Amino acid sequence: MKSASRKKIKTDATKDSRQTKTRRVGSKESSLRVATSGRRSPVKPSLITLLTDFGNSDYFVAAMKGVILSYNPATSIVDITHDIPAQDIEAAAFTLLAAHTAFPEGTIHVAVVDPEVGSKRRAILIKAAGQFFVGPDNGIFSYVCDEAEPEVFHVNNPEYFRQPVSDTFNGRDIFAPVAAALARGIVPQKLGVEIDVFVRLPSLKPEISQSGVITGRVIHIDRFGNCVTNITQRELTDKMIDDGFRLTIQNHHVETLRRFFAEETRDNKVFCFWGSAGFLEIAVKNGSAAKQLKIERGALVVVTHS
Amino acid sequence: MKSASRKKIKTDATKDSRQTKTRRVGSKESSLRVATSGRRSPVKPSLITLLTDFGNSDYFVAAMKGVILSYNPATSIVDITHDIPAQDIEAAAFTLLAAHTAFPEGTIHVAVVDPEVGSKRRAILIKAAGQFFVGPDNGIFSYVCDEAEPEVFHVNNPEYFRQPVSDTFNGRDIFAPVAAALARGIVPQKLGVEIDVFVRLPSLKPEISQSGVITGRVIHIDRFGNCVTNITQRELTDKMIDDGFRLTIQNHHVETLRRFFAEETRDNKVFCFWGSAGFLEIAVKNGSAAKQLKIERGALVVVTHS
Amino acid sequence: MKSASRKKIKTDATKDSRQTKTRRVGSKESSLRVATSGRRSPVKPSLITLLTDFGNSDYFVAAMKGVILSYNPATSIVDITHDIPAQDIEAAAFTLLAAHTAFPEGTIHVAVVDPEVGSKRRAILIKAAGQFFVGPDNGIFSYVCDEAEPEVFHVNNPEYFRQPVSDTFNGRDIFAPVAAALARGIVPQKLGVEIDVFVRLPSLKPEISQSGVITGRVIHIDRFGNCVTNITQRELTDKMIDDGFRLTIQNHHVETLRRFFAEETRDNKVFCFWGSAGFLEIAVKNGSAAKQLKIERGALVVVTHS
Repeated sequence: MKSASRKKIKTDATKDSRQTKTRRVGSKESSLRVATSGRRSPVKPSLITLLTDFGNSDYFVAAMKGVILSYNPATSIVDITHDIPAQDIEAAAFTLLAAHTAFPEGTIHVAVVDPEVGSKRRAILIKAAGQFFVGPDNGIFSYVCDEAEPEVFHVNNPEYFRQPVSDTFNGRDIFAPVAAALARGIVPQKLGVEIDVFVRLPSLKPEISQSGVITGRVIHIDRFGNCVTNITQRELTDKMIDDGFRLTIQNHHVETLRRFFAEETRDNKVFCFWGSAGFLEIAVKNGSAAKQLKIERGALVVVTHS
Repeated sequence: MKSASRKKIKTDATKDSRQTKTRRVGSKESSLRVATSGRRSPVKPSLITLLTDFGNSDYFVAAMKGVILSYNPATSIVDITHDIPAQDIEAAAFTLLAAHTAFPEGTIHVAVVDPEVGSKRRAILIKAAGQFFVGPDNGIFSYVCDEAEPEVFHVNNPEYFRQPVSDTFNGRDIFAPVAAALARGIVPQKLGVEIDVFVRLPSLKPEISQSGVITGRVIHIDRFGNCVTNITQRELTDKMIDDGFRLTIQNHHVETLRRFFAEETRDNKVFCFWGSAGFLEIAVKNGSAAKQLKIERGALVVVTHS
Repeated sequence: MKSASRKKIKTDATKDSRQTKTRRVGSKESSLRVATSGRRSPVKPSLITLLTDFGNSDYFVAAMKGVILSYNPATSIVDITHDIPAQDIEAAAFTLLAAHTAFPEGTIHVAVVDPEVGSKRRAILIKAAGQFFVGPDNGIFSYVCDEAEPEVFHVNNPEYFRQPVSDTFNGRDIFAPVAAALARGIVPQKLGVEIDVFVRLPSLKPEISQSGVITGRVIHIDRFGNCVTNITQRELTDKMIDDGFRLTIQNHHVETLRRFFAEETRDNKVFCFWGSAGFLEIAVKNGSAAKQLKIERGALVVVTHS
């Protein structure tokens, strides 16, 4: 909830690509819109997810849900997680990336890790990958935008805010009611103005040298101690795997790729596998790779031919 | 879940004020009532919240939800929190106070921190602030009643309980089914009898001396380590702030009031701000005020002219 | 999420008992089925519960919910818990046993503690006690089947899976979409084939010697430190209690049975009570029995005449 210095990359989304996108998304929008005349019009159930660093022991998350359901009682609300480490925008961005692909078209994701709440940092709304994303303009939506052609809006219409707006809890007073408005079929153009530039984190893409060496990093450690890297099958190809590869992390070498956990039969043996979010992960049999190898998020991962 | 000695204050709610209230709440009730004849009658979606000290690792919370949805499948259920410290009625009362204002009229809040479960302590149902509150008569609803003119009912009609009633889990067998009955439109008068006296905690109001010194206390410490006091803008007025104030807690002095976190630029600097629940809070930049100042709930807070 | 050696007991469900069962459950099923023709057919709201060892800090649980709501937007989803200790099938089986009785007929329970995910262990679907259970065939549904006459299906129709199926996250790609299909009214026979043999854990039943000595064990320790045994009122009868009993655990003797917590007035006093899941529990006044008596799950409990 407090400001942290943070490397920011501003990017331009090209106008053309957005216009192409608009047409496709436009048709979706109408199915979300709640009919206000004619009682037989079908209302598609709306779905809002929440992802924050608020924890579950305070009133913060419940207050956001209360506001959403005040504005829109028929909305389904799903918690992605509220256990993002405090102020950790990168962790939030990864978790949203991994979760959002399982949700249906038109889902509205609200993400609030917001050290600069109350300052001049903007509230934004993004249309990307057929879904909506609402939250602070601090990079939290970077990774979901990397593969998409996002339309981005600066949310600045106070008509859709809960008044008075607290300077320390925009989740309740701006992001929740704006998401509820979207769920009622209010179009983004009424909630704010389209913008070209927004805050983005450095790309998740690993580097590949001319000789084919892949240099990536650990971007997430899950509850089982599995270490998720930013390496995908685009970098570590089937051919490289067939030819034999060697992954190096903290002076440990791993040359085994397993298809699933039980395939590895030796306790404490370190191996790699393709995780369910599409990234290469490092695991140990019946243990925590993070603990056994003393890995923290950000640790360098280098893959070479073996 | 076990009894603790606890200072109790019994109060009388005046009959007159309740009668005035009744009229207003009565109209709300009818909108909650589920029509039983005529298939086109609109059914307002009902909303039940849960707040307990049960944690999330056992079957307790799920059992309450199962019972509610057995009686009333269309209810939306929102968790406020289940991480109230075991048996901590005061923490539950504060969290409910801070959360309930974000919920719509007619919301039914079930709160279960219940050391005396199974004993002769009563089950109660309160109408206050346009909402309903169901739980044990042990002070848990004190703070939401402080600003309202509550109507209070002793819930004693076993027809609406889940049988057999466990002596150790009234949450599942009394409070959940009673909340579900309310959500179906059963009026409080059918669930129990109106009462005048119920258990209340000492008021949250700070003391003000003749010379204008405010003596309050820390009533909550949130997940970020921010310390919520019981001081509001009624006590610490704009004029006092303009004239200059000094807050003292554990021999630390604070004279800075910030509007939001990022406004403070010095790390580890202690400052005050008006929190999102309407109370004065004590924070430190990029850290935990509770840890840095070694503050626990209940710590005295004194505000004087500087 | 990783394989563990585990004692398995294979059992045959008798064909006859299942056929009797089929008739009764069949009528329930039709009320769950979503009508596909005729817009006025009533649709019973469907209810899916989730129980896993995934924790709440990752994207795993949200991904399962996203898939369920993609296939079936009108489903209510209830979390039983996601804090089952990693790979602890026995803990999952107990929690499901204790929770499921509070849920309505037709509820679909998805339970995923799945060390062998990706291997040849089967996905199964069980009809028991008027409800449905979906998950891995590793014993996780043993205890709910102990009192029922289960119908068991090997879920093997990939038409109802989410493609491509991850070898490390069947919760998202098999169990969630299969549960959603059930909720839409797809009959088990379309999702897989009926089987006679499935993996079961050792029975929860305690042993009784010829002289009447009951030998049980601690099967769960709850968040308050109460120790749940596998002893029920079938073994420890009212007569034995009236005649006087002595429970021994770790060299401690307990001879007091309380009806509720506050009935015991001495701090740190150890006593027994009948817990809300129907089992004898061991507690201490205003403290944790598990900590005070140094009890872990599995600890032997012996009950004799006093």
